[in-house]
Amino acid sequence: MTNPTAAILVIGDEILSGRTRDSNLHYLAGELTRAGITLREARIVADVHAEIVAAVRELSGRYDHLFTSGGIGPTHDDITADAVAEAMGARIGHRADAMALLQAHYDRSGLPFNEARQRMARIPEGAGLIDNPVSIAPGFTIGNVHVMAGVPNIFQAMVASVLPRLTGGPPLLSQNLRVDRGEGEVAEAFGALAAEFPDLSMGSYPFIQNGAYGTNLVIRGTDPGRLDEAMVRLTRLFA
Amino acid sequence: MTNPTAAILVIGDEILSGRTRDSNLHYLAGELTRAGITLREARIVADVHAEIVAAVRELSGRYDHLFTSGGIGPTHDDITADAVAEAMGARIGHRADAMALLQAHYDRSGLPFNEARQRMARIPEGAGLIDNPVSIAPGFTIGNVHVMAGVPNIFQAMVASVLPRLTGGPPLLSQNLRVDRGEGEVAEAFGALAAEFPDLSMGSYPFIQNGAYGTNLVIRGTDPGRLDEAMVRLTRLFA
Repeated sequence: MTNPTAAILVIGDEILSGRTRDSNLHYLAGELTRAGITLREARIVADVHAEIVAAVRELSGRYDHLFTSGGIGPTHDDITADAVAEAMGARIGHRADAMALLQAHYDRSGLPFNEARQRMARIPEGAGLIDNPVSIAPGFTIGNVHVMAGVPNIFQAMVASVLPRLTGGPPLLSQNLRVDRGEGEVAEAFGALAAEFPDLSMGSYPFIQNGAYGTNLVIRGTDPGRLDEAMVRLTRLFA
Repeated sequence: MTNPTAAILVIGDEILSGRTRDSNLHYLAGELTRAGITLREARIVADVHAEIVAAVRELSGRYDHLFTSGGIGPTHDDITADAVAEAMGARIGHRADAMALLQAHYDRSGLPFNEARQRMARIPEGAGLIDNPVSIAPGFTIGNVHVMAGVPNIFQAMVASVLPRLTGGPPLLSQNLRVDRGEGEVAEAFGALAAEFPDLSMGSYPFIQNGAYGTNLVIRGTDPGRLDEAMVRLTRLFA
């Protein structure tokens, strides 16, 4: 049984310039792991139409799911919906269902539903809307591409609405052993153990604390029994 | 005058599983902006040889510089050096200069310079070493690819040693106006202003604070005079 695969594409000059630190990637990584979907790749590209189109085509073709973050607001630099439509070969315009959602929202709030705000109703033909309980303007799913907002609390709400619809495999479990030794001391025995458990993934993550080296040894897999078996061996080696 | 371009490739299952939140990407983004090098793309891939090779080939071919983070330690999952060597068509082995550095270090510390630790001397032929003042095991530069450690304080020390050797353009400057209005209210005038200043990049970043919408309007460019000119216009529009 192989878990479905996924990639995330973050669209945003503000991340690449160092102005903003992305948090959506890390959030989605955790949620996908719990859902049994394997995040295989992440990319961040600038607000450039051709680059978004190319990345969407490549990543949606390579993985079971592609999640995007950012670029679906009302301003001139929000170009994700049009780029995704082009990448997926779909026409795009102001869709009646999205227009109705937004019109009702702005009627309630007393704010003008101006041309800029109407841009947020630009949704590719054939796409399903993703609910936005925070600020109404929807995301959308077209084919295997899930297009979501960049503002973290809206992104998280959209993930919560999309993920239950997707079929995941068994959740990826992990166990961690922290040892007060440098990687160089544990590497040989740890590598030998990893070779004995080819169905599990084992990684070692060094750190320095109070001037001393330490290492986190992490074992990942979907079978809890195998994970326990490897963990018993690991503990005997290093604890 | 066009600034040199760059990409960063982060290698690490631990980021994609959500276990660890990457900080090197954000750090490098800020440093490159100050150095006048434009970060155009970031990628995170798993500890899989073929995927690292493919990403290094593609990104080193497309941009002036590629920086990598992670996977150069002593354990079995540290496969970056070999993957980069293959991507760049270079042979790799235990290099005498790196062996000497590490031998001296372990002699001083009284720890065994075992086979695992000797892995850290695997450096492609023709590569220049990148100094590691924290834990000695060097990074390296081959062609336009700068291979650095994933542990944040070592990564940062290596960036400090690499960046002064690279020729940057004028630093990318940015100015920010925070307005207490939603994006939908400022979008039209802001878009018109952006169209008048094609040499600058203008982005809008919405936020929600205490239940109210606000927007950060950011103008970026390398010419301080033009930036000031646009900022005066922006302030007149919205302040």
